[in-house]
Amino acid sequence: MKITLAHCFLATFLLVFMTSQAQEEDATQLRKLYDVSLLDGKSYNWLRELTKDVGPRLSGSEGAAEAVIWAEKALTELDLDSVWLQPVMVPKCTRGLPENAYITGDTLNQQEVPICALGGSIATSEDGITAEVLEVQDIADLSEYGEARIKGKIVFYNRPMQPDLIETFRAYGNCVDQRHAGAMEAAKYGAVGVIVRSMNLRQDDLPHAGSMSYGDLPDAERIPAAAISTNGANLLSKTLKNDPKTRFFYKMNCKNYDDVQSYNVIGQITGTENPEEFMVVGGHLDSWDLGEGAQDDGAGVVQSMEVLRLMKATNYKPKHSLRVVLFMNEENGLRGGKKYAEVAQEKEQKHIFALESDAGGFTPRGFSFDTNEANFNQVLQWKPLFEPYLIHYFDQGGSGADISPLKEENMVLAGLRPDSQRYFDYHHAANDTFEVVNRRELELGAATMASLVYLFDKYGIQ
Amino acid sequence: MKITLAHCFLATFLLVFMTSQAQEEDATQLRKLYDVSLLDGKSYNWLRELTKDVGPRLSGSEGAAEAVIWAEKALTELDLDSVWLQPVMVPKCTRGLPENAYITGDTLNQQEVPICALGGSIATSEDGITAEVLEVQDIADLSEYGEARIKGKIVFYNRPMQPDLIETFRAYGNCVDQRHAGAMEAAKYGAVGVIVRSMNLRQDDLPHAGSMSYGDLPDAERIPAAAISTNGANLLSKTLKNDPKTRFFYKMNCKNYDDVQSYNVIGQITGTENPEEFMVVGGHLDSWDLGEGAQDDGAGVVQSMEVLRLMKATNYKPKHSLRVVLFMNEENGLRGGKKYAEVAQEKEQKHIFALESDAGGFTPRGFSFDTNEANFNQVLQWKPLFEPYLIHYFDQGGSGADISPLKEENMVLAGLRPDSQRYFDYHHAANDTFEVVNRRELELGAATMASLVYLFDKYGIQ
Repeated sequence: MKITLAHCFLATFLLVFMTSQAQEEDATQLRKLYDVSLLDGKSYNWLRELTKDVGPRLSGSEGAAEAVIWAEKALTELDLDSVWLQPVMVPKCTRGLPENAYITGDTLNQQEVPICALGGSIATSEDGITAEVLEVQDIADLSEYGEARIKGKIVFYNRPMQPDLIETFRAYGNCVDQRHAGAMEAAKYGAVGVIVRSMNLRQDDLPHAGSMSYGDLPDAERIPAAAISTNGANLLSKTLKNDPKTRFFYKMNCKNYDDVQSYNVIGQITGTENPEEFMVVGGHLDSWDLGEGAQDDGAGVVQSMEVLRLMKATNYKPKHSLRVVLFMNEENGLRGGKKYAEVAQEKEQKHIFALESDAGGFTPRGFSFDTNEANFNQVLQWKPLFEPYLIHYFDQGGSGADISPLKEENMVLAGLRPDSQRYFDYHHAANDTFEVVNRRELELGAATMASLVYLFDKYGIQ
Repeated sequence: MKITLAHCFLATFLLVFMTSQAQEEDATQLRKLYDVSLLDGKSYNWLRELTKDVGPRLSGSEGAAEAVIWAEKALTELDLDSVWLQPVMVPKCTRGLPENAYITGDTLNQQEVPICALGGSIATSEDGITAEVLEVQDIADLSEYGEARIKGKIVFYNRPMQPDLIETFRAYGNCVDQRHAGAMEAAKYGAVGVIVRSMNLRQDDLPHAGSMSYGDLPDAERIPAAAISTNGANLLSKTLKNDPKTRFFYKMNCKNYDDVQSYNVIGQITGTENPEEFMVVGGHLDSWDLGEGAQDDGAGVVQSMEVLRLMKATNYKPKHSLRVVLFMNEENGLRGGKKYAEVAQEKEQKHIFALESDAGGFTPRGFSFDTNEANFNQVLQWKPLFEPYLIHYFDQGGSGADISPLKEENMVLAGLRPDSQRYFDYHHAANDTFEVVNRRELELGAATMASLVYLFDKYGIQ
């Protein structure tokens, strides 16, 4: 056949026509996903159940066990193709209330300040610890002070989160070493305990929990580690300036146990065309014990569940197998995320895409992608589809802790990026409750996640 | 002189160099504005004073008078070039608590429901009103029911805000005619009162106030108008479905007075190069009486004040005269906005740019512009400067109620567009208090406004 100009026109016309048809189909499907989420969403009521009926769910706790039962039941009711529990051993620790602290000194009245044990810390002795305090801004300061100034003292890490960083997770990232490694490092210089300023951009009375590690430090050298509220930290710092001989007392009864059995909770819609290629959407089921784990990460759990429900409610049948994975033990071990990746590798299950929501149920702004240029460029072509939903942010960077062990050469990892301004007001603190999650923000996040899943399912990865 | 290729290169190089110099200067100035706002901001403490020390400030109330004094004092302390009060007559009305309502009927127990009088409504008689209820979805429904079905009844407007609209102000715009004109229209068919579903996307127990108008309706034909909480509206609707003879009782003691003297509060930094060309940044000082007017519009007031403070704190001296205008009476008359424009016109003060913040102190997303294509295109060129601050939204549309009377051919009107998802949770309701404003969100908004003011000042309008 001779190729004429007419043929060329026809081919061009067909290409343009098919492209615009596809764009219209995509726009229609996104609109459906948002409509169902906003008009008939289930995520908010699920969150109410998870936070109010189940409550806090630290790995290894009764709450965590209840959360597993709740999630399995809720996923079963969605009539997915399969729902199962994936066993994983997790650390167990208890707080053992009461825990308390005060600032004291020869010329001072006792002033109580709010503290909480960090996750994994040893307890104080039954009588608590009282010692003089050395305030530092950085782990690096320890080597300057040396054992002479540190031995026998409580080291007080007081470097605040930087308010001038627009993305609050960066401010968190710049501070969290104090919490994670502060005790381990101070112990090497003979400190008897550490107090860490809460990772919170507000000045308030809430201590913020979080994980810490002693690394390879022998049991006998481990020292108790607590977070202090930002107001408490400010007061302690001010008091120390007036009287460097100020002493600090704290008493904690936290306890670490042997690992216990727990589970990731998984539900699957089996793919119609590529059932052996997997897409994962998830959040973590465990939470810290002080609040109800609403923003961290009840929101991510119920949004991930909602993604699969939205697919069914809009009659979209994924070509690839789509899994919701509710990971156990993100907070203090990441055992669930590691286990899921380990099993996937053992079974040679090819994962092409994984999306995590673990930055709160706030108004979604977009996504961060950990993938190659080709896949990222594909995402950028989808940007116009998200514009009606005010989703603007598409960047390369991290994804989510739980899905990161899945990382392989030829896949896409992504993290939902909601507005981050309020996240650290609640993160790991007693005020992370159902009431601080706004229904619309949560539902917009779920629809935004479902939209990205739909597009990766339809167009595959590069 | 012969123009050689070398000359061309040199000219191009100089242009590129100067452009990149200017871009760097702009980027540096924006960074300074955000830094000062986030690290040493005054907006949040001002908001605390305005909401907690002054409190609610309905036009004509003592609170409004106190707000004028507070604002004049706070602006004076900023050491601007001038601060003054601009007299304006405003309407005055009082709520006259208690106001109450219940659902009743022959087969029902009385069920109390939360209501509040709409602004400008007449009171009920001293004994209140009891009547059967006709539920409608739209003012247009009235003509279908006609006088036969309406006369002697209370008309209940129950069209909800649409949750599927991403921008909540659009959902508000689609419903607010019920509140504004519902009583006027129902009265024409002989209704004895109206109850309007609160403009709120949440289902809760808070009635949301707001303005209404009787238009030219003679005094004798006016009927009392109240807002009912969304939960109350849902209950009333359900009860009516079960028993169409359901009656509604309500009693309100609101009262309208003659106009009283009030003021716009204005502060100015006089321009260094074009002092006779004005730029305005503003919000409205008045609020509804139920809450503390924190999101609406305490946030806009303190952000606008902060814009001028940020200019001084960063040693930026505007070329054009920059005014902060704190408008009185946006809520129920717009007298302040009209007066400011009237005086500006009388005095032939050329305004080139006006920016209003009256959509809450939430995370800023960008701006809406009411201007010509040339100016809008200039703004689009500035987009990259805002990207580090996650400011993405630049659209053409409305600006702000108070500044809209300033509109002229050759100027730019703009409105800050913060995240809108939570705004109607608080709008005109008792929960619009200081506590629901997040410090960082507020401060980011102020810096974003200041950045736009800086750019318009530096580059002028097209």
